[in-house]
Amino acid sequence: MKRVKWEATTSIRRTVEEGTEQDAQSVRMIIADVRKRGDDALFDYTKKWDGADLESLRVTPDEMADAVKSLDPVLLKDLQEAADNIRAFHTLQLREDIHMPLQGDSYLGYRFLPMDAAGLYVPGGTAAYPSSVLMNAIPAKVAGVKKLVITTPPSRNGKIPAGVLAAASIAGVDEIYKVGGAQAIAALAYGTESVPQVDKITGPGNRFVALAKREVFGQVSIDSIAGPSEVAILADESAYADEIAADMLAQAEHDVLACAILITTSEELAAKVEDEIERQLKVLPREQIARAAIEQFGAIYLTESMEEAVEAVNQLAPEHLEILTENAEAVSANIRHAGAIFIGRYSSEPIGDYFAGTNHVLPTNSTARFSSGLSVEDFQKKTSVVYYTKELWQENYPKVARLARMEQLEGHARAVEIRNK
Amino acid sequence: MKRVKWEATTSIRRTVEEGTEQDAQSVRMIIADVRKRGDDALFDYTKKWDGADLESLRVTPDEMADAVKSLDPVLLKDLQEAADNIRAFHTLQLREDIHMPLQGDSYLGYRFLPMDAAGLYVPGGTAAYPSSVLMNAIPAKVAGVKKLVITTPPSRNGKIPAGVLAAASIAGVDEIYKVGGAQAIAALAYGTESVPQVDKITGPGNRFVALAKREVFGQVSIDSIAGPSEVAILADESAYADEIAADMLAQAEHDVLACAILITTSEELAAKVEDEIERQLKVLPREQIARAAIEQFGAIYLTESMEEAVEAVNQLAPEHLEILTENAEAVSANIRHAGAIFIGRYSSEPIGDYFAGTNHVLPTNSTARFSSGLSVEDFQKKTSVVYYTKELWQENYPKVARLARMEQLEGHARAVEIRNK
Repeated sequence: MKRVKWEATTSIRRTVEEGTEQDAQSVRMIIADVRKRGDDALFDYTKKWDGADLESLRVTPDEMADAVKSLDPVLLKDLQEAADNIRAFHTLQLREDIHMPLQGDSYLGYRFLPMDAAGLYVPGGTAAYPSSVLMNAIPAKVAGVKKLVITTPPSRNGKIPAGVLAAASIAGVDEIYKVGGAQAIAALAYGTESVPQVDKITGPGNRFVALAKREVFGQVSIDSIAGPSEVAILADESAYADEIAADMLAQAEHDVLACAILITTSEELAAKVEDEIERQLKVLPREQIARAAIEQFGAIYLTESMEEAVEAVNQLAPEHLEILTENAEAVSANIRHAGAIFIGRYSSEPIGDYFAGTNHVLPTNSTARFSSGLSVEDFQKKTSVVYYTKELWQENYPKVARLARMEQLEGHARAVEIRNK
Repeated sequence: MKRVKWEATTSIRRTVEEGTEQDAQSVRMIIADVRKRGDDALFDYTKKWDGADLESLRVTPDEMADAVKSLDPVLLKDLQEAADNIRAFHTLQLREDIHMPLQGDSYLGYRFLPMDAAGLYVPGGTAAYPSSVLMNAIPAKVAGVKKLVITTPPSRNGKIPAGVLAAASIAGVDEIYKVGGAQAIAALAYGTESVPQVDKITGPGNRFVALAKREVFGQVSIDSIAGPSEVAILADESAYADEIAADMLAQAEHDVLACAILITTSEELAAKVEDEIERQLKVLPREQIARAAIEQFGAIYLTESMEEAVEAVNQLAPEHLEILTENAEAVSANIRHAGAIFIGRYSSEPIGDYFAGTNHVLPTNSTARFSSGLSVEDFQKKTSVVYYTKELWQENYPKVARLARMEQLEGHARAVEIRNK
């Protein structure tokens, strides 16, 4: 892990992992194949890459019921409570339609309407996270999406982890299909015999999933391309080194590409955190992954002042930001770019990953500069409404006609004038 | 123009115009070239495709001032009033931050923050529309974007239309650059010596612009890919054929690919509209364009009932929808998918194009199924906030630890437990 003295010229912004042009080519081939052969292509790819020889893609009601039964009731209760918290926070995101009265009965309106169908991608293997199911599915359901579909790659025995199925049932997911990778994205975007075509695809995935989402963008809506997870911790001498180290390792254990950054004004804290990371790494089950991530993408940036530290954070635009300083809340008011902010030592980031109620599908790779975590709005669209009475039209149509003629659109001018009878 | 009896099986959904793989290849080459050679590449392409041999890319304050002076004061006043209307409606879209109090001082928050910089693409030639400048720029400024940049291709003499510059000055645009096409999108996404890198690119363009936006998606945020403009008119026997024909031609004159569709329960009205379109086409300055559009993409769908007609509209998900029926407002309540709805005969669609205050950058090609017109939110992002007190952490960290261990993320569990000192 490097320790660097930060200066305004220091560039710590991460960039989107593009994937190679070769990756993009093979993803385009997979998409074309799924459009052409439908389910047959899905079965073939699932056998080839997931090692599962399926007879049917769709998870059955029995599989769902068995999964819920098989889960430790304490865990089931924890998942239900987490789901309630997520539902409560996301329900606050719902908006009232806008009604802007104009002269007489005239008005402008703005309506928020749900999409008909959405598809949620859930990664497989060790990344098959029940928490991701809740975080993706609940906003869609709160938004009012009628048909909510999950695609996720099965294990070799053709099964989906019980936790994922239980979370899907708690969240009210309508259909689940055993397919992953670029082929799942293609199926959701274009539909196959089994998998319905959806209007929006969300959820994290590997680089093939990300490339496939970019390819189908326009055909369907997608969420922002998710990269490796990141945490930045903004701390001063008041913070606890062992807690910072633990939070950095919680990110690092996700993925060898995960990123954990400490930005601090305290050289003493920096040194302590380095020692703590080493101490805690030695006894961490995922030591190998976490160590690789820390060595490659772990960093400590030392700044002269808290102002400088805040500037560094805004340049980084981290997915997760912990603020462990005096007056942490006041400091947070100066953060312009971060996916999610965790204030104070008792708001450890995993509380947001699982339980608090905010969403954990968040913008990575510095894209918090321009994108947001998953929300109810991701599953709605807006329709504007114009209602002009005769009186308001009478007063304004000559202006509209003049503006239209300025753009050499005579037909537009005539359309508003022809009402004059 | 075809006349078809609509049935539930009739597919009238438009699909995204993909552009050929060859187009995509050349767009990728242009982007790579701009990243490599910066301004030099921009000057070269502008000379090659726009025929303009520029010495500087940026529009000067003098050019701006001259443009405003040169404009008919009546038009200037019309543009200012349109801008006021657009500003008023978009200001209503601004949201209050969300504060969700939890136990004690704990809370969850949701902050709406503007992007730092945005780039607005304005098409050139006959499509250099002052109205588009207002529609793109004002939402960004209302959102609080500090640096707002326009790129637009110059004419052969190196000039930008006075109306575009005047609209930019009314809307408070900060910088304008004389560059168009895929090279402009590349410059905004990656920055050059002259053109600043932005966080979001919006605005309509030809298929090369659309392909370029898809390519840079992820590096920056983009609005939905805009296709040829469309209007659908839902009408019964109470509507006026000449007004419907005029509104259909107002769309058709945009572009030979533009689409104008009448969906009606009245065979009599259908026949009258066909006659009126022919009558009005003969005397329309842009007859050639409009006739080509009407012949290729004009259509009248006859339905048995208003319910069927509404179903047809929802399947089409049109960019613009006019409702010219009895109880038009009640009918509009059943529309699930449309970019913008215009209610009643005095709400002719051009009123929304220029003046009413709603946005005219709207989802085309049936993408209103999942996307929305340009809005203030397109220039903001959301940051969630978690603040847990010691008490709330104490009560909940064991649940978080259990959920983390279910996902084999021991480091996550330890991060919340280590606070227990």
